[in-house]
Amino acid sequence: MNATAERQVYLSGEWVREADAKISIFDSAIMLGDCVTESTRTFRHQPFRLDDHLKRLYQSLKVCRIDPGVTQAEMRAVTLKLLAINQPLLGPADDYWIVHNISRGLSKPGPNPAQKNPATIMIFNSPMDLRGWKKYYTQGCHAVTSFSRAIPAQSLDARIKNRSRLSYTLVDQEARLVDPEAQVVILDIHGHVSENKGGNIFAVTDGQLRTPTADNCLAGISRQTVLELARSLQLPISECCLQPYDLATADEVFFTSTPYCIMPATRFNGLTIGNGTVGPVTRQLLGAWSKLVGMDIVAQAEAQ
Amino acid sequence: MNATAERQVYLSGEWVREADAKISIFDSAIMLGDCVTESTRTFRHQPFRLDDHLKRLYQSLKVCRIDPGVTQAEMRAVTLKLLAINQPLLGPADDYWIVHNISRGLSKPGPNPAQKNPATIMIFNSPMDLRGWKKYYTQGCHAVTSFSRAIPAQSLDARIKNRSRLSYTLVDQEARLVDPEAQVVILDIHGHVSENKGGNIFAVTDGQLRTPTADNCLAGISRQTVLELARSLQLPISECCLQPYDLATADEVFFTSTPYCIMPATRFNGLTIGNGTVGPVTRQLLGAWSKLVGMDIVAQAEAQ
Amino acid sequence: MNATAERQVYLSGEWVREADAKISIFDSAIMLGDCVTESTRTFRHQPFRLDDHLKRLYQSLKVCRIDPGVTQAEMRAVTLKLLAINQPLLGPADDYWIVHNISRGLSKPGPNPAQKNPATIMIFNSPMDLRGWKKYYTQGCHAVTSFSRAIPAQSLDARIKNRSRLSYTLVDQEARLVDPEAQVVILDIHGHVSENKGGNIFAVTDGQLRTPTADNCLAGISRQTVLELARSLQLPISECCLQPYDLATADEVFFTSTPYCIMPATRFNGLTIGNGTVGPVTRQLLGAWSKLVGMDIVAQAEAQ
Amino acid sequence: MNATAERQVYLSGEWVREADAKISIFDSAIMLGDCVTESTRTFRHQPFRLDDHLKRLYQSLKVCRIDPGVTQAEMRAVTLKLLAINQPLLGPADDYWIVHNISRGLSKPGPNPAQKNPATIMIFNSPMDLRGWKKYYTQGCHAVTSFSRAIPAQSLDARIKNRSRLSYTLVDQEARLVDPEAQVVILDIHGHVSENKGGNIFAVTDGQLRTPTADNCLAGISRQTVLELARSLQLPISECCLQPYDLATADEVFFTSTPYCIMPATRFNGLTIGNGTVGPVTRQLLGAWSKLVGMDIVAQAEAQ
Amino acid sequence: MNATAERQVYLSGEWVREADAKISIFDSAIMLGDCVTESTRTFRHQPFRLDDHLKRLYQSLKVCRIDPGVTQAEMRAVTLKLLAINQPLLGPADDYWIVHNISRGLSKPGPNPAQKNPATIMIFNSPMDLRGWKKYYTQGCHAVTSFSRAIPAQSLDARIKNRSRLSYTLVDQEARLVDPEAQVVILDIHGHVSENKGGNIFAVTDGQLRTPTADNCLAGISRQTVLELARSLQLPISECCLQPYDLATADEVFFTSTPYCIMPATRFNGLTIGNGTVGPVTRQLLGAWSKLVGMDIVAQAEAQ
Amino acid sequence: MNATAERQVYLSGEWVREADAKISIFDSAIMLGDCVTESTRTFRHQPFRLDDHLKRLYQSLKVCRIDPGVTQAEMRAVTLKLLAINQPLLGPADDYWIVHNISRGLSKPGPNPAQKNPATIMIFNSPMDLRGWKKYYTQGCHAVTSFSRAIPAQSLDARIKNRSRLSYTLVDQEARLVDPEAQVVILDIHGHVSENKGGNIFAVTDGQLRTPTADNCLAGISRQTVLELARSLQLPISECCLQPYDLATADEVFFTSTPYCIMPATRFNGLTIGNGTVGPVTRQLLGAWSKLVGMDIVAQAEAQ
Repeated sequence: MNATAERQVYLSGEWVREADAKISIFDSAIMLGDCVTESTRTFRHQPFRLDDHLKRLYQSLKVCRIDPGVTQAEMRAVTLKLLAINQPLLGPADDYWIVHNISRGLSKPGPNPAQKNPATIMIFNSPMDLRGWKKYYTQGCHAVTSFSRAIPAQSLDARIKNRSRLSYTLVDQEARLVDPEAQVVILDIHGHVSENKGGNIFAVTDGQLRTPTADNCLAGISRQTVLELARSLQLPISECCLQPYDLATADEVFFTSTPYCIMPATRFNGLTIGNGTVGPVTRQLLGAWSKLVGMDIVAQAEAQ
Repeated sequence: MNATAERQVYLSGEWVREADAKISIFDSAIMLGDCVTESTRTFRHQPFRLDDHLKRLYQSLKVCRIDPGVTQAEMRAVTLKLLAINQPLLGPADDYWIVHNISRGLSKPGPNPAQKNPATIMIFNSPMDLRGWKKYYTQGCHAVTSFSRAIPAQSLDARIKNRSRLSYTLVDQEARLVDPEAQVVILDIHGHVSENKGGNIFAVTDGQLRTPTADNCLAGISRQTVLELARSLQLPISECCLQPYDLATADEVFFTSTPYCIMPATRFNGLTIGNGTVGPVTRQLLGAWSKLVGMDIVAQAEAQ
Repeated sequence: MNATAERQVYLSGEWVREADAKISIFDSAIMLGDCVTESTRTFRHQPFRLDDHLKRLYQSLKVCRIDPGVTQAEMRAVTLKLLAINQPLLGPADDYWIVHNISRGLSKPGPNPAQKNPATIMIFNSPMDLRGWKKYYTQGCHAVTSFSRAIPAQSLDARIKNRSRLSYTLVDQEARLVDPEAQVVILDIHGHVSENKGGNIFAVTDGQLRTPTADNCLAGISRQTVLELARSLQLPISECCLQPYDLATADEVFFTSTPYCIMPATRFNGLTIGNGTVGPVTRQLLGAWSKLVGMDIVAQAEAQ
Repeated sequence: MNATAERQVYLSGEWVREADAKISIFDSAIMLGDCVTESTRTFRHQPFRLDDHLKRLYQSLKVCRIDPGVTQAEMRAVTLKLLAINQPLLGPADDYWIVHNISRGLSKPGPNPAQKNPATIMIFNSPMDLRGWKKYYTQGCHAVTSFSRAIPAQSLDARIKNRSRLSYTLVDQEARLVDPEAQVVILDIHGHVSENKGGNIFAVTDGQLRTPTADNCLAGISRQTVLELARSLQLPISECCLQPYDLATADEVFFTSTPYCIMPATRFNGLTIGNGTVGPVTRQLLGAWSKLVGMDIVAQAEAQ
Repeated sequence: MNATAERQVYLSGEWVREADAKISIFDSAIMLGDCVTESTRTFRHQPFRLDDHLKRLYQSLKVCRIDPGVTQAEMRAVTLKLLAINQPLLGPADDYWIVHNISRGLSKPGPNPAQKNPATIMIFNSPMDLRGWKKYYTQGCHAVTSFSRAIPAQSLDARIKNRSRLSYTLVDQEARLVDPEAQVVILDIHGHVSENKGGNIFAVTDGQLRTPTADNCLAGISRQTVLELARSLQLPISECCLQPYDLATADEVFFTSTPYCIMPATRFNGLTIGNGTVGPVTRQLLGAWSKLVGMDIVAQAEAQ
Repeated sequence: MNATAERQVYLSGEWVREADAKISIFDSAIMLGDCVTESTRTFRHQPFRLDDHLKRLYQSLKVCRIDPGVTQAEMRAVTLKLLAINQPLLGPADDYWIVHNISRGLSKPGPNPAQKNPATIMIFNSPMDLRGWKKYYTQGCHAVTSFSRAIPAQSLDARIKNRSRLSYTLVDQEARLVDPEAQVVILDIHGHVSENKGGNIFAVTDGQLRTPTADNCLAGISRQTVLELARSLQLPISECCLQPYDLATADEVFFTSTPYCIMPATRFNGLTIGNGTVGPVTRQLLGAWSKLVGMDIVAQAEAQ
C-alpha cells in the first residue's frame, strides 16, 4: 500500500507518483488509440530481454511514424533508472512488470493526423500480480474459441504492438460466455489458430511442439523464448498452420505471455486435452525457463 | 484563448477545466483502447441529432458490455448542461463539436478483462475549427486509396464507434504519401470502397447518388442525413457495392462527417473527377443541409 | 404408444411400421451422406405448402443427379396416402411432421459414384413434438453464435437440402457450450449471419423486418411464409447482409423453421434483445400465421 | 456368392449377416449424416496400421462429442474378432477392406442435438474389389479439377473423417462431366490443390515429391505411408501449397487412398502429364509399399 | 473475298487495308497487353449505342491513364467515317462489328511504364459472322462452369474493357473439356456467377429475370439493353448474387453479348435447363430487341 | 543507330529488321492478350540459363494449350542463330536482352477460341539499356506498395509467364503516385507481399534472406539464381509469407529481375530501410552473381 503510494512513473520526462500519473483526455492515446506499447518483466529483479523489447518498440514506432523524441539508448536508460527507483519498494520474492506506452501526443483537430506535438511517453512498473493466474500452473486453464476473428495483417499488423486493442477485450468476453475463467483462442479470418489476447498458443502432439507461424499473430518474445528453450532441449518444433482440431486432439496445449511465461491449458472448448493434467513437455519448458532466469517461476506465483 | 482557459469538461461526474481534464495512465482507454465514442456538433448553438448519437453510443456500450453507470437520459442531461456552461464562451458565429468518450474505467491486471471499476466518462465541447477543411468546399479535396484495408466486421464491427483506431491513422498516412493533403479512401478486404477515417463516401454518377451499404463501414449519422436530404430532393439513391473504378469514373464524389458535413473531392488518385469542380449535386446537398440547420455551412467555415 | 407401434413409413415402395423401417448399412445415405430431404408439417391435419416442398425436393434431386425413379406427382400421391394412413393415429389437436429422405440407394465400391441402384425413398410422419420448444414462444430463446462457419455455397450450396449435416450438429454443440439451451446463429465465412441449423433468422429494427439474403443460407419455406405474411401486413422488409452487431442491437429477433414456425429469441450471446420480452412484430407474425392456417400455433404447442 | 451370404457384420454389439445389417431410418447417421468413419484394409490378411486408424477414429469421435460406449481397446478387439470370423470366407490371394461407421445413434426430434441414445457401431469387411481401379496401375488415370471447392476447415475440418460427404459425390460428378473415368482433384476455396474424394494427391517435379500440407485436406494414413516410404528411399519431400499449374507441369502425379494405395495419373485436365506413362518415382513407391506389406499390390489387383 | 481485300482499317491516323493493318511487335499492346477496347455492331447498317460504347472507352482510357491523343468527338467522327468507307462492301442483309483497340503505343524498356509515345489506335469493321452461333438461337447452347475464377476487381476491374484477356481464353478451354461447344460460366473467387468471356449471364426463375450485379463482371451494354427491354415489357428484374444452383434450377438461362445479342442456353453442366427448349421470356426479349433495331436478329443469323 | 537499323528479329520463320517486325492487328496477341513470353539476357555475350527459360516457356505454352509448331530444341536453335546474327552489332561491353513472345496466331471470330492458325513466334534482341536503373545500384530505389492486388493464381497463375499484363502497368502507376521513381511492391489478395511487376522481392532481417514462397508470384529465374548464390554463400534462407511490416523493419530489401539482376531498395513507403544505404548482403550477392557470370554487373550498368 505504502509502496503503491510511493511508486514512480516516468511520464514524458517527468518522474511522478502513480496516483499523479495522468494525461490529458485530448491525448492521441485516448482520442485515437494511437499508442504503441511493450511489456516485459523482471526475474530476480533483472529485466528480461529488455533490448529485444526495446528493439520491437522502436520498430512499432517506426512503422506508425511516431517520433518518440528519444533514442533507443535513452529509452533504455530511463527504463533502468525507473526500475532502480522503484526496486526498493518491492519485496525480495517479487518482481516487476515493466510497461512502455508511447502515444503520438496531444491530438489536434483537423484533417491531418500527422504528429504535431511531442510524443507522450509513459513507463511504469507494476508488481507482478499472479494471483489470478497461479492456479492454472497446476490445474491448467480452459482454452475457448471466440467467434470473432483476429484483425488481419492487411488491416493492422499484429506485430505492431499497440493499444488499439478493443477487439481483444471483445473476443475475450465471447470466450467467457462459455466459462468465466476461459482463456481465449482467437482464430484468424481463415479459421486458423492465431493468438490469445496478448499471448501465443502452443500445442504438443506426439512429442512435437507446434505453434502458428508469426504471420497471423504477434511474434511474442515469450514465444521466442519457448522456441529457444525447446531447441536447447532438442524438442522437435514446427511453426505451422494450426486449427481448432489440432488443439482438441493435442496431448498438451499452453499459452505464453510476459506476465505468466507459460500457462498450461487442460481443456479446450469443454473437451479434455490429453489426459487432463499439465503435461510433461509443458513442465519441462517451465522448468527450463525457471533455470534460465535462476528462479522458480511457479513457486513465485504460488507464494502470492 | 481566454475561452480555452475557461471551457469545462465533464469527467466522470466532475466539471473541470480542459487543462485539468486528465485521466490516469492506468485507465482502460489508454491501456486497452477500451473506449467507445460519439461526436456531434451544434448548428446555431443547437446540438444536431443528439438523440440519434446517444442511441448509437448506448448501442456501442451494450455490444462492448461497458456499463456507463448512467442512463441515456442522464447522459443527455449532462451533455446539455455542459453545453449550456460552455455556450457563453463561444462567438455568435461559431459552433461546438460535442464529443463523448466512455471507457471501461481503471484497468486491473490479471486474466479477466471484465469491468471492475466505474466507467470513465469524458464529455467535452471544442469550437468547430474548420480552417483545415474550408478550402475543400470550393476546390474539392484529393481522395486517395490506402493499400491497407479496413478492419473486417468479423474482427471488429465498424459500427461500434470506438477509440481503438490506430488503423485509421495508419491508412491516413499511407494516403498522404501520395499527397500531404489527401483524404483517405479505405477499401475493405475484398477491395470494395468502405469508408474514410471517421467519414463516409458518396459518388454521383449519371444523377444517381451512390454510397456503400453500411455492412462494411460505420453507418454515419451524417451519411444518414445526406440520404434523407437526397430523398427529400428526390435524387435517385443506391446503397450498393462501390469500387475504385466507380470513384474514378463518377461525375462527383464527396465525403460526409460530423465536423464538415459534406466535403467535395475533385481528384481521385491523381485523376480529375468529373470536370474537376465541385458538382451540382454536391452543392445542392450542401445547400439543403444548410437550410435544414438554418445557417450557411460553407460560409461559417470560410469566415474562420 | 399404440400409435407409435402402428404408424407406417413409406420405404421405397413398401409400407412398413416405424419399428421395421430399416435400411442396409451399405446404403449411400449412411456410407456417403448422399441423401436429400424435405420436411413439412400439417396444420389442422392439412400438409402445409406441400407442393413447394416437393418442388424444392426435385430441385435438390436434380442438382445431385439422383434419379428418384418416381415423378413429382407420384411422390405427392404416396405422401398423401401415407398421411391418410397415419392420420387416424393422431389426436385431433395434434399435427404431423412429414419428412422425405431420398438417397442414391445402395452404394457400390469402386471409383465411380454414379447411381447404380434404385434410390432409397423414405417418407415418414412424426407427431409434432413441440414440448422442447414451447416455452420459447413466451420466454424467447437464447441465440448464440458458433465459432465454426457455415459451409460456403461454392463447397456445398445450402439450398440443396441434404442430410450431410454433421457441421450443423457441431456448430450447435459449440453454441450449447455457452448455454445448454442455446439456439445457434451460424455465420458465413465472411462473418455475416447465415442461418440456424435448418432454420432462418430475422431481426426487427426500427419497425423493419430484416433477414439475410438467400445466397448464404437455405431459402426456407418458413422464411418465405414470413416474408409473404409481412408483405400482407405491410411491414417494411429488407433482405440484406446482417452481422452479429445487428442482432445485438435489434428490437426483436426470431428464428423460423418448419416444426415451430417462428421462435422468438430474447437474448443474444448473453445480451438482452430489446426489452427482453417477445416483441410486437414477432407476435403479429405468429398471429398472422395462425390465421393463415386456421389454428393457434402457440396454443397447440402449449397444450402438449 | 456363398461368402457374401455368410459374411458377418458387427452391429452395435450384435453379429449379423451382411444382408441383415440394417439400421433404423431414424438413426442420426441417416437423419443428420452424424457419423464418423475409418477405413483400412488387410495385406496378406493382416490389417494395415489398424492402431493408427483407431486412434484417428477416436479423435473424430472426441471432436464430434460422440460417446461410442466402448474403449479403443474394445473396438480393436471386436474389429479383430470380426476379421477372424470373416477370414475363412476370403480367397487366399484376396484381402479385406475394414470399415468402421459410428453414428450418434437414434436421433430425437427437438431443439437439442446432444447424444441421447447409444452410438450405432457398424463394422464390416468387404473383399477388396480392385477391378474398377486395376487398369490405372499401368495406364494411369485422368485427373480432373472440379469447379466446386473443398469445404474449408473453419466450416468442417476434413480431418474429422466423417460420412457427411455429399460434397465429395458432387465434385466427383463434376469431374466426370469431362471424362466418365476422371478422378477428381478438389481445390480449396483459395484455389490450392486440396484432395481427391477420400484420397490425397502427390506430384513429382524434378525428382522432388510434393503434396499439399494437411491443413486443407484429410491427413490420410496412405499419404503418411507414402511420406515414410519416400523418406526411407531418400526422396526429397515437400509438404507445400500446390496449384493446378503444378500438376499440369509435373513429371508424375498420383493419388493415394486405402483401397488402391497408389494410383498413377497420366493426364490432367486433358493435358499429358510428363511423357504420359506411369513414372519411375511412382513405380518405386508402389514397389516399396509392396515390399513393406510382403505382397505385390499391383499383381493382386490385376489378378482380379 | 473481294470485300476483304478492300476493307479499310483506321490505324493511328492512317487508313489502310486489313491485310496491311500491322503494328510493331514492340507495341505495348503486344509487349504488355496494355490496350483497352470496345466493340459494338450495326443493325441495318446503323451503329448500335455508339455513344455509350465510346463513353465507356474513354472511361477505360482514363482509368488506365492512356492518352489517346484524340477527343471522344473525334473518335466518333473517324469511327463513322470508317463505317461509311466500308459500308459499300457489305451485303444489304449483313451488318458490321465495330471494334476499337487503343494501346499505350510503342513500349520503351526501363523502369517506368508511363506513356512516352502516341497511343496506337486501331479501328476496324468485320462483317458479323454468326455462323458459329446461329444454331444456338433455336437449340440453345450448353453453359459450363470453369474451375478457374474471374479476376477479382481489386486485381483488375472487369469494367476496364481491355485486351489482357488470357484468363478468358483459359477458362473457355476449361469449359470445352466438358463439351467442345460449351459456353463458359465464370465464377468469381467467392463462387458466385460472374460472367461469360466477354458476355453476361441471365436466369429466368418463376418469371423473374435475374443477373449478377455489375460489381463482379463487365457491365455490358447488351446487358443494359436487356434490362431496359425487360423494364419496358414489365418483367420483374433482380440484379443479385447468383450461384450455380440458380442456373441449374432456373426455367431459362441466356447469355448476352454484342455479336449475338442474346444466346439461349438449354443445358448447364450436363443438366437440362427448364424443359430443354428456348423459353418464352428469352424469345420475348429477342423479339423486343429485334423490334428495337427494326430487323429480325435471329433471321439475319440464320440467313448466313 | 546503325545497329538499330540492322538488328534482326525472328518472326514466325522469317528474319526481318526490327523496323519491319510487325504483326497483324488481328493477331491473338493483340485481340486477346493471348501470348506467352520469356526474357533472358546475355552476360559477356553468352545467354544466361537459356535452357531454364525455354523449359518454362514450353510449360507456359502447354498450360495455355498453344501449339508453337516447333520443338524446344528448334526454338533453342533459332534463338542462338538470331543472337549470332545480332552479336556483331553490339559493343564489346554491352549485352543483349533476349525476348520470346509467342501468341496463338491470327484470331478468328466465333464462339470457339481454340487455336486455328499457326502460332506467331516473335524473338528479338535488345541491347541491355540500364541507364534507367543504374543509379539504384548505389542509391537504392524506393519500394512502394500499390493498393490494387496481384491477380490470384485461381484466376491466372503468375507462373504462366504471359503478356496479359495490364494489371502490372496499373499497379506500377499507383506506386508512382507516391514517387515517380517508385518500384512497386504488389500484395496478394490476403495482403501478403507477392512480387514486383516482372520481378521478385527479398528482405534481409538479422542476417536471414527471406522471400515469398512461389505460390503467389512468378517463380523468377533471377530469384532462383539468388537463392542458389545464397546457398553457396551459406546465408540462411527462408521462403515464407512476408508482409509490409517485414519490409519496413528489414535491414535490407532488394528486387530481382532479368534486366538488372538485383536492385537494392533503400526506402519503403517513405520509411528508410535499415540505415538507408545498400546493405552488405545485397552487395555480397551482387558480387557473387558478377563472379558467376565473369563480369561486373554494376560496372557494366554504370558505364552506360
